[in-house]
Order: sequence, then structure tokens, then C-alpha cells
Amino acid sequence: MLPYPVDHIGIAVLDLDAALSLYTKDLGLTLTLRETVETQHVEVAFVEGPGTCIELLAPSSPQSTLSTFLQKRGPGLHHIAFKVYDIRAELARLKSLGAKLIDEVPRSGARESLIAFIHPSFAGGVLIELRESQSKSL
Amino acid sequence: MLPYPVDHIGIAVLDLDAALSLYTKDLGLTLTLRETVETQHVEVAFVEGPGTCIELLAPSSPQSTLSTFLQKRGPGLHHIAFKVYDIRAELARLKSLGAKLIDEVPRSGARESLIAFIHPSFAGGVLIELRESQSKSL
Repeated sequence: MLPYPVDHIGIAVLDLDAALSLYTKDLGLTLTLRETVETQHVEVAFVEGPGTCIELLAPSSPQSTLSTFLQKRGPGLHHIAFKVYDIRAELARLKSLGAKLIDEVPRSGARESLIAFIHPSFAGGVLIELRESQSKSL
Repeated sequence: MLPYPVDHIGIAVLDLDAALSLYTKDLGLTLTLRETVETQHVEVAFVEGPGTCIELLAPSSPQSTLSTFLQKRGPGLHHIAFKVYDIRAELARLKSLGAKLIDEVPRSGARESLIAFIHPSFAGGVLIELRESQSKSL
């Protein structure tokens, strides 16, 4: 259902502890979850405040595609994630509009969710994540 | 007052009309304002939906620092803007934490506001904008 609300903003970082210090101590956000997503070789931390949810992502292994991103572009803004209610239907819709799907089939993401990424060529260089929560509380 | 809520996400684009078509037709957001900020040599458009405000920015002249950004990094995510209620106090606070301020003194921004940018070296490669609305309705 359009428009999708923003779920979170993803930020690629080199050092998760240093980034957490900045976003919690200096910018006052609250750490709500920290977990390693083994399949994607990333460690993520969510920091939140009223109207704000930021996902900090650091590679947990050099095999991570995030390592390649960091080597090419350096740390910084990485993706926008939108909340969707039927991720498969939205992937099919975006594909019909010509979007190149990084994930043709949704996969498990952090915070009990199904996620899929849309190639930045669709949205003028912006990497878009679709996220369908699998938990009623998230 | 911390934490700052996110005001908008800034996206650098090469072609504002093409980007508007994508964000309104394909992603269902609503164009709420389009204006040229002469002092910054940029044309901006705000597209919004529930819980989402995105600023699309295109250079209106090659003198724009945005032109340099686009040449170096290509189009894509550009900045996060946070709402603040006393921009001068927040600039002083961030400076005391060691932040390099792009704008030591706030300047006029789009949508009747005072804005100031914090150098990406402060927030791990993320360009942060502070925005104090000068209008009760925004």
C-alpha cells in the first residue's frame, strides 16, 4: 500500500562501538537492539528516538557486501528502508515497473522481519530496502 | 533537546523531474513544495507521506557544492536533517563536542527555516543538517 512509511535509515560504519557512542551519547538516541545477521556477515545496532530509527551496520567478516561498499564509498548513508505489509506483492509491483531486484525472494532480516533490497539503479542511486515485520510488536 | 527527531532525508538527484516521477508515481509520495534556493544554487522538491519526508535536491548551477558532490559520488543519499528548536544552542553544543561546523552561523533554508550543516567527519561520513522551523505550521 503506497506510500510506504520509512522504517529506518541505514548507515554503514567502520566501528560499531564508536558509532554507538556518537548516536547515543552525543545525539541522545537509545540503543534498542544489537545483533549479528550471520547470513549477511553484518553486525547491526538500532538506535531510536521519537520519529527516528537508525540502523548502524558494520561488516562482521570481509565476505560481507558491506565491506565492498565501505571500500568503494567509505562510511556514511547506506540505504532507506520502507515498511511494507506484503513484501512479495511489492517486489512483484516494483519488478513490473522495471526495478532490478537484488533479492527476488525475501530473506530473513534483523528484528524478526522479511527484507529485500532493490538495486540503486531503480531509485537514482538510492539503495532501497523493503521490510515486512514478522512480529506484531515491531 | 535530544534526541532530535528526523525532519527529512536529503537525496541528491541529477534530474528533478525524473526523480519526482519516481517518488510520486511509483512510490506514492506527494509533492508538497518545489523551490529554488538561490543562495545555495539548488532546486529542491519535498515529497511526503505518513512518517516520511524526503527532500530531492538538484543543482541549479554548476557553482553549487551539490554539483561537486554529484561529480564525486554520483546521485543518491545526501544528508539527514534533524529538527531542532534552538539551532544556535545546538551548534554550540556540537562544536563543544568537537564537531566541525560547515555553517558556524545558521542560514536561510527551504520551507521558512534556519539551517546549518555539520561536516560528515563528525558523524562517520554522514552529512547532518540541523533545521529550525521559522513557521508554526511547518
